[in-house]
Amino acid sequence: MKSNKITVSQIAKTTGLSPATISRVMNHPELVKQETLESVQTAMLNLGYDFQKATVLPVQKKKIIILNVPDTENIFYDEIIKGAKTSAHAHGCHILVNECPIESGTIKEFCDLIKCIDVAGVILLNQVETTLLEQIHAIAPLIQCCEYNKSSNYPYVSIDDIDAAEKATNHLLSCGRNKIAFVNGPLSFKYAIERREGFLSAMNTADTFVPKNWMIQLPKVNYDMAYAAISRILNEETIPNAFFMSSDIFAMALVRAAHHFHLKVPKDIMVVGFDDISFSSIISPTLTTIAQPSFQLGYSACEMLIEIILNPSSTPKSLLLGTNLIIRESTSIQAP
Amino acid sequence: MKSNKITVSQIAKTTGLSPATISRVMNHPELVKQETLESVQTAMLNLGYDFQKATVLPVQKKKIIILNVPDTENIFYDEIIKGAKTSAHAHGCHILVNECPIESGTIKEFCDLIKCIDVAGVILLNQVETTLLEQIHAIAPLIQCCEYNKSSNYPYVSIDDIDAAEKATNHLLSCGRNKIAFVNGPLSFKYAIERREGFLSAMNTADTFVPKNWMIQLPKVNYDMAYAAISRILNEETIPNAFFMSSDIFAMALVRAAHHFHLKVPKDIMVVGFDDISFSSIISPTLTTIAQPSFQLGYSACEMLIEIILNPSSTPKSLLLGTNLIIRESTSIQAP
Repeated sequence: MKSNKITVSQIAKTTGLSPATISRVMNHPELVKQETLESVQTAMLNLGYDFQKATVLPVQKKKIIILNVPDTENIFYDEIIKGAKTSAHAHGCHILVNECPIESGTIKEFCDLIKCIDVAGVILLNQVETTLLEQIHAIAPLIQCCEYNKSSNYPYVSIDDIDAAEKATNHLLSCGRNKIAFVNGPLSFKYAIERREGFLSAMNTADTFVPKNWMIQLPKVNYDMAYAAISRILNEETIPNAFFMSSDIFAMALVRAAHHFHLKVPKDIMVVGFDDISFSSIISPTLTTIAQPSFQLGYSACEMLIEIILNPSSTPKSLLLGTNLIIRESTSIQAP
Repeated sequence: MKSNKITVSQIAKTTGLSPATISRVMNHPELVKQETLESVQTAMLNLGYDFQKATVLPVQKKKIIILNVPDTENIFYDEIIKGAKTSAHAHGCHILVNECPIESGTIKEFCDLIKCIDVAGVILLNQVETTLLEQIHAIAPLIQCCEYNKSSNYPYVSIDDIDAAEKATNHLLSCGRNKIAFVNGPLSFKYAIERREGFLSAMNTADTFVPKNWMIQLPKVNYDMAYAAISRILNEETIPNAFFMSSDIFAMALVRAAHHFHLKVPKDIMVVGFDDISFSSIISPTLTTIAQPSFQLGYSACEMLIEIILNPSSTPKSLLLGTNLIIRESTSIQAP
């Protein structure tokens, strides 16, 4: 019996190729090697795929997916958008990016927007209160991506921020650093709460004390605010010999502020960032950081949404993807 | 006689405030100083503004504006999007960002999209062929922003790239550098053709020769490609003592490649970038660059579009905005 209910991730698992490659094979078979094409097609046939049917949405169906982000300024979102676009395109849908927070003051505007466009579904990268999630869900199916509301039951794809922050902190401790400061974003976000928890847990386990004024809480992910806060710390007599940052933007501010105080990174101060934005491997020194699977986050969020759009009674299982510690010059003991 | 046909730019001109401030006064009067509010209100009354009428589009009108960009990866677009959003919001419209090139292979998909959403108008940041512009225009009003098709008659807002490139090159010459290389993006873009023209014009005027292999033409604005191309130049016996780059991304690649070749910026090699992306003032050394009025480009493009939406027979005059040379450490003679 032939079925079209197999997923890209099943094909990826069978072939050992990445979901992105599978998607490229499906969208642009002319761009991939003949052997890749054949391996995917064989796997799809074996999984029972019927090439006569298309997985794209029927013509009369709604085709617009709104991807709502807190801020297009944060380049961390770029790869997420790309991942979502790749999935959407494979199903004949369009991704349109809408930038605004979703809170009591903006919910009406957002709901008007998605009603007016008659969207197929919504991917939310904001932290949204349960009652507001319900208002959105009454209009269109939704998936939460990266940020998610723990007290709601709507599906999400995200990462384990506690584990990631522990990995980052343990790396600094294993480099022999014991005076570690932490710069974080607003605690209204799930990521900020969990990264703080992971940092403190690793420091506690290592029985290492963190002075209160070395735990910086900023109101947004902003380079200038971070630079100012870090400068105050570096201006004291006793300064940290390492920083864990909940964003690469903060790590970049540390590199620059250290330069101003004639301190060398990593010799005097090591730093680990978060996100692995493209600039992390571009600046000098290059940044050790936690790489999020950004493309996969966007891709999976959209795949899960499409699953609900095609079958409104389905409830895709929420998913936490793995992160990687990428060690670069900012924590390298041999580096200049 | 009272009229609502005055524009934000008229109010800006009358008050001496920036269009962004005017827009903030209109959207968030609670956030501005009392004297600013009063000065704007007085100017509006003097210009004949009727506070009883609103400038927002009537409820039944279409309200979605699609802002089409070649690539959300290029963070240069962030401020443009912000500018367009500020204007759109003041008129009760929504900006949705769509990322795709517009060419013969994608035009059908793009036209389907804007038909399906029934958009109020389109802001194009792509270079689009005349026949394709006509197909879009048959569906919705359009404005070209940054890139524009010189052989079409559709309105645009952009900058004078020739003049900007001349300024950048003359700055390097005035710093005593005479061996200047140039790294550029694809010549399918208007900006690349004009920056090349400005660079060569300044070099010719200074009677300074440019070897062919110091004129690099890359197929896209990409850090890795630039790094590879620059490394080949720096690996030769005779190397440049300055680079003019048509993007800050290329300038960042130069800083990193110079580091690899144990060359100091600015002592051994000076560099001027283009765009003034936020990272230009973050990296060490900070980058001298040409600042584009990105917010204003997006804001003006949307204002011109709204003008056509409100009055379909109007033909807003195309506009070239000024650029500024921002001198930072990468060309500073005193810098380390």
